[in-house]
Amino acid sequence: MRRDLWAEFLGTLMLVMTVVGSGIMAANLAAGNDAVALLGNTIATGAILVVLITIFGPLSGAHFNPAVTFVFLLKKDIALNAALLFILAQIAGGVIGAWLAHVMFELPVMQLSQNPRTGLAQYFAEVVATFGLVMTILLGLSHRPKQVPMLVGLYITAAYWFTASTSFANPAVTIARSFSDTFAGIHIGDTGPFIIAQLIGAVLALMMARMLVKTASN
Amino acid sequence: MRRDLWAEFLGTLMLVMTVVGSGIMAANLAAGNDAVALLGNTIATGAILVVLITIFGPLSGAHFNPAVTFVFLLKKDIALNAALLFILAQIAGGVIGAWLAHVMFELPVMQLSQNPRTGLAQYFAEVVATFGLVMTILLGLSHRPKQVPMLVGLYITAAYWFTASTSFANPAVTIARSFSDTFAGIHIGDTGPFIIAQLIGAVLALMMARMLVKTASN
Amino acid sequence: MRRDLWAEFLGTLMLVMTVVGSGIMAANLAAGNDAVALLGNTIATGAILVVLITIFGPLSGAHFNPAVTFVFLLKKDIALNAALLFILAQIAGGVIGAWLAHVMFELPVMQLSQNPRTGLAQYFAEVVATFGLVMTILLGLSHRPKQVPMLVGLYITAAYWFTASTSFANPAVTIARSFSDTFAGIHIGDTGPFIIAQLIGAVLALMMARMLVKTASN
Amino acid sequence: MRRDLWAEFLGTLMLVMTVVGSGIMAANLAAGNDAVALLGNTIATGAILVVLITIFGPLSGAHFNPAVTFVFLLKKDIALNAALLFILAQIAGGVIGAWLAHVMFELPVMQLSQNPRTGLAQYFAEVVATFGLVMTILLGLSHRPKQVPMLVGLYITAAYWFTASTSFANPAVTIARSFSDTFAGIHIGDTGPFIIAQLIGAVLALMMARMLVKTASN
Repeated sequence: MRRDLWAEFLGTLMLVMTVVGSGIMAANLAAGNDAVALLGNTIATGAILVVLITIFGPLSGAHFNPAVTFVFLLKKDIALNAALLFILAQIAGGVIGAWLAHVMFELPVMQLSQNPRTGLAQYFAEVVATFGLVMTILLGLSHRPKQVPMLVGLYITAAYWFTASTSFANPAVTIARSFSDTFAGIHIGDTGPFIIAQLIGAVLALMMARMLVKTASN
Repeated sequence: MRRDLWAEFLGTLMLVMTVVGSGIMAANLAAGNDAVALLGNTIATGAILVVLITIFGPLSGAHFNPAVTFVFLLKKDIALNAALLFILAQIAGGVIGAWLAHVMFELPVMQLSQNPRTGLAQYFAEVVATFGLVMTILLGLSHRPKQVPMLVGLYITAAYWFTASTSFANPAVTIARSFSDTFAGIHIGDTGPFIIAQLIGAVLALMMARMLVKTASN
Repeated sequence: MRRDLWAEFLGTLMLVMTVVGSGIMAANLAAGNDAVALLGNTIATGAILVVLITIFGPLSGAHFNPAVTFVFLLKKDIALNAALLFILAQIAGGVIGAWLAHVMFELPVMQLSQNPRTGLAQYFAEVVATFGLVMTILLGLSHRPKQVPMLVGLYITAAYWFTASTSFANPAVTIARSFSDTFAGIHIGDTGPFIIAQLIGAVLALMMARMLVKTASN
Repeated sequence: MRRDLWAEFLGTLMLVMTVVGSGIMAANLAAGNDAVALLGNTIATGAILVVLITIFGPLSGAHFNPAVTFVFLLKKDIALNAALLFILAQIAGGVIGAWLAHVMFELPVMQLSQNPRTGLAQYFAEVVATFGLVMTILLGLSHRPKQVPMLVGLYITAAYWFTASTSFANPAVTIARSFSDTFAGIHIGDTGPFIIAQLIGAVLALMMARMLVKTASN
């Protein structure tokens, strides 16, 4: 048994269950007040990220995100084989997390989102959102490794509000959310550009962090 | 005098007083906007959990929850006699906490909730909610014991939103809430399946945590 | 110059300025949605308490509250003379803090609140609120002194919602709020029973904490 | 390459992007409920400040604010040349951050705010807001340097609500917000008195902190 894969699977499952479930709860209760719905969605997501990264971090590093795993692959902190298994575990966990949220809220388990999220502004927002997330992780690991769970939770709390796309910033979560026709959903046909934008943002952050930290160590 | 029993009693009392009291306040003020009411209820509950677990933890371990005490009994971290006394203290504290909230808000002290919470989806939500809570506690204690108060506060903050049942996740709190016909109430006839679901979730979490941590220590 | 008195004066000033100012802002913006107004008031008050106790704590202990100073007097942690000066500094700071909030929001500086807050339920709520606050401080200082600023901020965040009185829990703040006819105000004729209730709660908490901690050290 | 200037540039960019972007998002979603809009704006800004100060602090000190740089210049903690470059980097980062927010939300990139923010009460609020911010930073650095990122995030969370001006407290952010005709904007003609008020508040805080800490070290 690979405890790291279980951690990636369970962590991404609980993350997507929270994103989708709190989106359903918020939309149900907010009765059209979308700002209040987003507040509920934000608080739940930010809070669970701190928890999940803290409790699963010592087991797998708590990536829960193929863009993050990809960056660690480029940094040679993870081998290609392990990275591919991580990404599979993340996607599987994410999709099952969406399904569990549907079960809890008595919705059909299998759904496909009809929610369009498209346009250059949205894609640019995903580049920015993922750039900021990966910068937070890389500089956080470099300067204050114990605070990374809190930093990621707070970063996503902010990014839900400052990006026009509400900051997916995660290919596994993006795929999983295409299987949920609820508040948090995204049409499966729109996931491609989102994922490409996320990977671009992640690579840009890696380049920037290398420049800042290499300079720092001179 | 057993200081640990006083800590369990007072802690569960203050926890339920907060859950019930903030539910009354939120419902009074929100005038039908249930998402805003849940935000107020969430923030109060998450905040007080961090406080109570921090200040009573060194006295009793700060269970405040028969499902948690049951898990520690299975782990042989607590003796059967002590566990039964803990659970009695938790239930007594919880019920009195609900009554004190009623007194503060000028409501009849003795009430029985008429609020139905029923259905397989709700029960499944309680399995999930308690699974996540006990995983958070067990992995937190294993990796980052000092952060457990914050982790539990943040976990419940999220779980109020991602579970269809708003995450009772605690048999003593469930019983206590059946004595309050307010926002946070649950019909006493519906408490049985909730408690069974909570214990199932707790045991599943213990099994999963053992697997993850045993593997980790190899 | 007594740096401790300056710290008590400035800290209570900024605390009341935040309570009154955020109450005015919240009531102005919320347009009758009192739950949203209380959310804004809560977040501002909880946040500033963590800041003020952290930055002024090393200078004066950061009481900002005659009920807390009274408890430390009973514990013989502060001399009678110093305690009286602390309380004067707290009251003066509180009143001036209310006035500064009025200036910032272009309201008449001198006001008397017409907001009645009366009845046994409210007084009982103040006993409970102050009991919890002083328990949090005393047990926090005993077990986790570095976390007291955060614990107090979180406790008040919860207590704004679980007490029917929105948790004044502080005689100096109660007096200061009687000079503000805004969201946070209290009619000056109602301050007496509030203050008596607060002192009762504080003394009860001291007795309970002594019992719990004495037992702990046996 | 000067990593400190990059940190000031990127940090101020992300700060203003968050302030402006979350303001746009909040105003779009809140549909006229300004209290809810301010809640979203507050949570995003407070959260990102903790992140940015933590990750860029080791590179540049994480000023992101000419008033803060000015105070460190007066304290002789930074040379005049470096201070001027810091301030240029902050202003450039801030303006570009506003532009990036516009791009993400499909608004015209170049805008001038038509939002008047004027009157003695507003200027006084900016004196108070910046006084509190600089006190928080200086006493925090003196007593609890590791907690400064959290303290600043919490201070601004409170100050958005207790000051009539919603606490700009930062000349670079003030200038940048004049280039955004959105929720967070300020008419360029009103920036002068805001900046003067901010510098007055900063200098007053430096004087007060010197008095308190000098006394402390005697």
